[in-house]
Amino acid sequence: MDLIKTVRTVKIIAALTKPPKVAEDHADIIKPQTVSFHKDAANSINIDFANQPTNPEHREHTAPINETSLYLAATYVIDAKYNRNFQFKTDLRSLRLYHLYNQRILSWMLYFFVILNLLLAMFEKPAIPGWEIPYWGTMLLEVACMCYYTFRLVHNYSFSSERLWWKDAKHLVVIGIIALTILDMIIYIFVAQFAGAHVAVRGSRVLRPLLLINFPEMRLLRQAVRNIRRTLPEIINVLILLFMIIALFALLGRELFKYDGLNYINGDDGYFLDYFKNVWDLYVLVTTANSPDIMMPAYDENPWYMLFFIIFVMLCNYIFIGIFLAVIYKNYRMHLKNEVQRSVFMKRRKLAKAWDIVKVWKDNCFVLPWKRFCILLQQVEPKRSLSQIRLIWRVLDEDSDDFVSKREFLKVVDLLNVELLEIKDQQPFFQRWMPTCFNSKLSTIVRTIVKHRGFRWTFDTIIIINAILIGLDIDEAEWFFLSIFTVEILLRMYAIGFKAYFRNPWDLFDFTVITAAWVASIFEVIAEKKEFTEYTLDFLLVLRVLRLVRIPANLERFQVIIATLSNIGPAIVTFGGVIFVIYYVFAIIGMELYAGLFDYYGYEDDPVFLPFCGNKKLEGSDFYRDHYCNNNFNDVVKAFIVLFELTVVNQWHVISEGFVIITNAAARVYFIFFHMTVVIVIINIFIAFVLEIFMVEFSLSQSVHESALKKKIQELGLLATEEDDPGYISKPVVEDAVTIVDAMEEAEPKDTGLRFRLGERTRTVTVSLQNMFEGEIDAEYMGPEDADENNPNIEAQPDTLTLHSVA
Amino acid sequence: MDLIKTVRTVKIIAALTKPPKVAEDHADIIKPQTVSFHKDAANSINIDFANQPTNPEHREHTAPINETSLYLAATYVIDAKYNRNFQFKTDLRSLRLYHLYNQRILSWMLYFFVILNLLLAMFEKPAIPGWEIPYWGTMLLEVACMCYYTFRLVHNYSFSSERLWWKDAKHLVVIGIIALTILDMIIYIFVAQFAGAHVAVRGSRVLRPLLLINFPEMRLLRQAVRNIRRTLPEIINVLILLFMIIALFALLGRELFKYDGLNYINGDDGYFLDYFKNVWDLYVLVTTANSPDIMMPAYDENPWYMLFFIIFVMLCNYIFIGIFLAVIYKNYRMHLKNEVQRSVFMKRRKLAKAWDIVKVWKDNCFVLPWKRFCILLQQVEPKRSLSQIRLIWRVLDEDSDDFVSKREFLKVVDLLNVELLEIKDQQPFFQRWMPTCFNSKLSTIVRTIVKHRGFRWTFDTIIIINAILIGLDIDEAEWFFLSIFTVEILLRMYAIGFKAYFRNPWDLFDFTVITAAWVASIFEVIAEKKEFTEYTLDFLLVLRVLRLVRIPANLERFQVIIATLSNIGPAIVTFGGVIFVIYYVFAIIGMELYAGLFDYYGYEDDPVFLPFCGNKKLEGSDFYRDHYCNNNFNDVVKAFIVLFELTVVNQWHVISEGFVIITNAAARVYFIFFHMTVVIVIINIFIAFVLEIFMVEFSLSQSVHESALKKKIQELGLLATEEDDPGYISKPVVEDAVTIVDAMEEAEPKDTGLRFRLGERTRTVTVSLQNMFEGEIDAEYMGPEDADENNPNIEAQPDTLTLHSVA
Repeated sequence: MDLIKTVRTVKIIAALTKPPKVAEDHADIIKPQTVSFHKDAANSINIDFANQPTNPEHREHTAPINETSLYLAATYVIDAKYNRNFQFKTDLRSLRLYHLYNQRILSWMLYFFVILNLLLAMFEKPAIPGWEIPYWGTMLLEVACMCYYTFRLVHNYSFSSERLWWKDAKHLVVIGIIALTILDMIIYIFVAQFAGAHVAVRGSRVLRPLLLINFPEMRLLRQAVRNIRRTLPEIINVLILLFMIIALFALLGRELFKYDGLNYINGDDGYFLDYFKNVWDLYVLVTTANSPDIMMPAYDENPWYMLFFIIFVMLCNYIFIGIFLAVIYKNYRMHLKNEVQRSVFMKRRKLAKAWDIVKVWKDNCFVLPWKRFCILLQQVEPKRSLSQIRLIWRVLDEDSDDFVSKREFLKVVDLLNVELLEIKDQQPFFQRWMPTCFNSKLSTIVRTIVKHRGFRWTFDTIIIINAILIGLDIDEAEWFFLSIFTVEILLRMYAIGFKAYFRNPWDLFDFTVITAAWVASIFEVIAEKKEFTEYTLDFLLVLRVLRLVRIPANLERFQVIIATLSNIGPAIVTFGGVIFVIYYVFAIIGMELYAGLFDYYGYEDDPVFLPFCGNKKLEGSDFYRDHYCNNNFNDVVKAFIVLFELTVVNQWHVISEGFVIITNAAARVYFIFFHMTVVIVIINIFIAFVLEIFMVEFSLSQSVHESALKKKIQELGLLATEEDDPGYISKPVVEDAVTIVDAMEEAEPKDTGLRFRLGERTRTVTVSLQNMFEGEIDAEYMGPEDADENNPNIEAQPDTLTLHSVA
Repeated sequence: MDLIKTVRTVKIIAALTKPPKVAEDHADIIKPQTVSFHKDAANSINIDFANQPTNPEHREHTAPINETSLYLAATYVIDAKYNRNFQFKTDLRSLRLYHLYNQRILSWMLYFFVILNLLLAMFEKPAIPGWEIPYWGTMLLEVACMCYYTFRLVHNYSFSSERLWWKDAKHLVVIGIIALTILDMIIYIFVAQFAGAHVAVRGSRVLRPLLLINFPEMRLLRQAVRNIRRTLPEIINVLILLFMIIALFALLGRELFKYDGLNYINGDDGYFLDYFKNVWDLYVLVTTANSPDIMMPAYDENPWYMLFFIIFVMLCNYIFIGIFLAVIYKNYRMHLKNEVQRSVFMKRRKLAKAWDIVKVWKDNCFVLPWKRFCILLQQVEPKRSLSQIRLIWRVLDEDSDDFVSKREFLKVVDLLNVELLEIKDQQPFFQRWMPTCFNSKLSTIVRTIVKHRGFRWTFDTIIIINAILIGLDIDEAEWFFLSIFTVEILLRMYAIGFKAYFRNPWDLFDFTVITAAWVASIFEVIAEKKEFTEYTLDFLLVLRVLRLVRIPANLERFQVIIATLSNIGPAIVTFGGVIFVIYYVFAIIGMELYAGLFDYYGYEDDPVFLPFCGNKKLEGSDFYRDHYCNNNFNDVVKAFIVLFELTVVNQWHVISEGFVIITNAAARVYFIFFHMTVVIVIINIFIAFVLEIFMVEFSLSQSVHESALKKKIQELGLLATEEDDPGYISKPVVEDAVTIVDAMEEAEPKDTGLRFRLGERTRTVTVSLQNMFEGEIDAEYMGPEDADENNPNIEAQPDTLTLHSVA
């Protein structure tokens, strides 16, 4: 790539985005004054700190802070906070370009283009019926995507060291995909022009999902893929053993049944005589999909023949599947731990670099004084109030000597990740705007009632009654229920305020459902198309029944399970990503291979009816008999649905037999391969992940850092009375709700009315995983020396940090 | 129960069994001289130990050993060794009765009667066709079983303290079962006589498997059942949530599809209109058995309807099944740990009691001198040689001061459980009987070749060739292969000796297969019924292919998996027991409910053919269409096979629909209940167990005690040269093979030719589990005070020792 051109591009970008935005997310808030304040403050600190080290070497370490170095330190802290792992040059221009690169808008545009690129499959041939766009249309869109990818790469290159950039496999893969895609498009155009569109193949479409795991933004997804890749070798050992057993039993079965002359259940003769058919049947039996059909002929002949199948099933289904899960769980857990520790080391190294910039020499060791800390944190998070920064300082400063050591400083990012709410902001809307009315006697009674658990129980009961009436198909009371639920919502909003109301996911859910029901009901009244609206309304009314889900969430006995479910949430996004990548690849291949072979034309009574899914070969097959015509690869949505059905496993052999009948036995390879990839590997890894999250949920009910913060708040202040807490008095919130006298100025303690509360637990997967394994590493250990954080390939080195020895 | 009668019974037993047999298993070896030797030795020790404590309290502790107290101490050690947990009175008569009670022959008779009792179901109505015995016949056998159970109870009572015996729930349950069975038999006889045998029901048969878990001999099985019982409460929480979601989706589905007027795939109308049918269908969908059939009508109508099913399947099949496994794994692991720690505590308390008897006061603390130890161990294990006892002593005596402390003594049982072979006994047969010939040059060359790995590889290759020929149906070379394999076996026997040969499970397997093939081949030659013998021979020849399994066992990469498989072995016996109990209960209930409703009469071409399994109601059902007539409860074997098919899950809804059509919808309760019990609970627990064993296999490749012993042997002696080891030089054996100069008399070290080797790892589940969790307990901790080992109900107290706080 041409360096001069790159630099020019960068200059243009820089010109477009002046003044440089310094902190992601909060860029809009940093006023020029703020920046100058930082500069002044930095200078003032350099002067005010009298205790300079006498040893010149140490003095050298206590470097004066200027704007650039402060900016650099803040960048390291921000990177550590967001778990970013970029290498960048440390001059001011590169830093600004780097901050620009991390602008959320640019990332979102990347997501947009990646998704657009993937969605093109819906419009390309074979498209969803009626959605087809001529190929030049989809290609233009694809070229737009490629342009944006190129722009991101160039931007990334602009702040990176040239040597390291070219060593990073991610960049090379993206460049490769762009090149191959463009080549493929050119070839397609030529073939389509000269040989006709029906012979042209867009092979590069298979590569599209690879972009998902090769852009640095998709860190979690890439981690998951890497974990899976590393778990594979041992799985393959088990698979080999499994296939050896299948091969053996296929032989045993043939010898066992060969003199009986039995027929299959569907009437085919030659039961268990064909070796390779036996292998296939036994593999299907491992998935249980043809049980007990495959056994019945033998069983009908002689009950003792069942021993053959019982031994096989016990060995393969229970023991081997158990070992599969065990191998996957063990390996996945090990690699996960490895991965998490690596990112902890990464975080610590970033923070150590920031530390080296801001540290000062005092009493024979390096420390960080309050003022430098305050300036750094204001640069990192301009939105955070001074009192919050002071609170974080107090938590970090464990020995209360008003200096923070390196060990203490390394924890700053974990505290920044704990959500801290100032209760002042949490006052109900009405309390702030009509305090007299809000604090009147009547209003207080109403609020007390609404906050009482009896209020919730009453409405839970009403929801149950409503559900029962819906179940009995009694619609008469619908308007009554709709009104009463609306009143509930309004009362709740009044009592706890809009902000708190919409922060609570359950309330938000209630609100959405009831609003939707209102919209539907009103629509029904004014619209004429009775049937359509009744349909919509009924469905929305039923959605209200989903509020029943709220009830178990309130019961103590379900807490751990619900907590696991909500912790699984973010993980599902990651796994969903992995599964999507695999589905997409298989869907594209499936469409290229099997699109248009047959289609759904209804069954008998339909006017468009064509027998055998429009393909003579399916005559008499189980596939047609079971009405599976719609399970085809005629467009990307249908392909995904077929793959979903294959993932559920049941009847997958019938579906694959359909394709085998129409094409040839090689189709089985596609289906077996899909089964092994998704069902054996991915699903087991998912189960392993659920297992791990669940085990962690038991050992860690609250993160270490959250509890440290909470403890400090308690030490400094007073425990909250329920009055202080405007929210629903549900148990977990009460526990977290603590107030403090603003202890900023310890000399003159006075109640400034500032109160803190820990936010609802907003732990991401990354944070909870780090908590999981961080306890096992020494607090200052930076990881082995050879894992150099300046090496962008750190993630591509597969075995540098293995924990074989540790685990 | 009448005490006088009991005592009289006991006297009779005592009279019958004089002289009293003192140590289980080895009773036949203890000659009168041995007993008198013990007595003399005990006396001599009492005299020879000059260093009596001066403090009278301490002197009291150093009690002289007489025959009874030595016998009592040995009993405690034996109990600790076999993990027994009986309470018994400590007088000599009770002790002798107790030893008699633990005679293996009496336990075997108990197993025999329990199995006989269970097998009666094959002969009772509905019996296996042709196996029926008149009811008085089976009842006589059952009465015999009851008599033996009563005898065991009385015997147990005779050495127990009366108060504690009646507190033990196990005894009460057995008494209850005996009483109920006899009552049930009497009622049955009356009903059968006066109302006819067809209305009489033997309800007490359901109780039979409960005996399996209520006799003290079945400790492991009872432990497993208890673990499962304790895991249930949390599983039930998850089940409740699951059913709430199903109930919700059943409602949503009805509202969603009610205006579409769709038909089911089999043509029934009213798709998703009946709420309770929806619940059933969705439950079946959770088991995946009706996927994708249940979705197809909705999918054909509108692809977006699939979202309903996709969300449901993702939620219930993947997330909930994951949580099920997680809950079970977590709980099972916790309870297992709890259980194992409890039995460790039990073991230690037994040993502590033995210690209190044999300890002596020396230098201000209690110790055990060599002579007392030696006498005690000879009493415990008369078969063990003095040199082995000396070796154990040296391992125990860590600080080599020739006295064993209490802490050291507590480990004695673990060392007794490590198999220790004296290599002298392991010399090949021919070496001992024809040493000249065996050690001749030619013979040495042959032996070297046989032991070389190339020899094994050659025969592995021949096995593969043989397997391929069998696969290609080429029978001509069978005699050649048979001969060559026989030569292999003979050579191996010659080289390593008969004893070593038959100790190796792989060799034993080879031997069995080849011998069977020979028998079959000879039978074929002399017999005339060509077809039958060909059939048998072919099958046996194919069984030889099973030798292929040996190949992966020799490859390094499969070691952990193979080790797990072999460790799972004993666990499967326990789980098999649990599953058998549940199967038996369900089979008996199923037979009472559904026996004789329909039967298998062949399909179309058969001469005995009756349409619809002989039951008109099955006309047009999937059950009949799928040829499931043989899946009935007409005898206990068929019932077990149906339950097996239900365990595999696939098509279980079709099987249960068959019974619903013939009887009524209540049949679903039986099948759902079976599914929840076996598939959701037991199978998941089994998978959890496999998981745990696998995780343990990684962390513990050898038990702590084995390696301690090995280290000591190495310290004392010399590492074995390969010459010393007559066995196959396979890697694990080489590692374990060490020889020692007999170091009994350290003053005059001379090579007495005695060499030790650790036996092949014969770890039982109990031992490996104890190793697993024992590391977490302090070496001398006896467990919480309230878990009194004199309390026979210790196992019945569910929450005394919970590790909620520890785990």
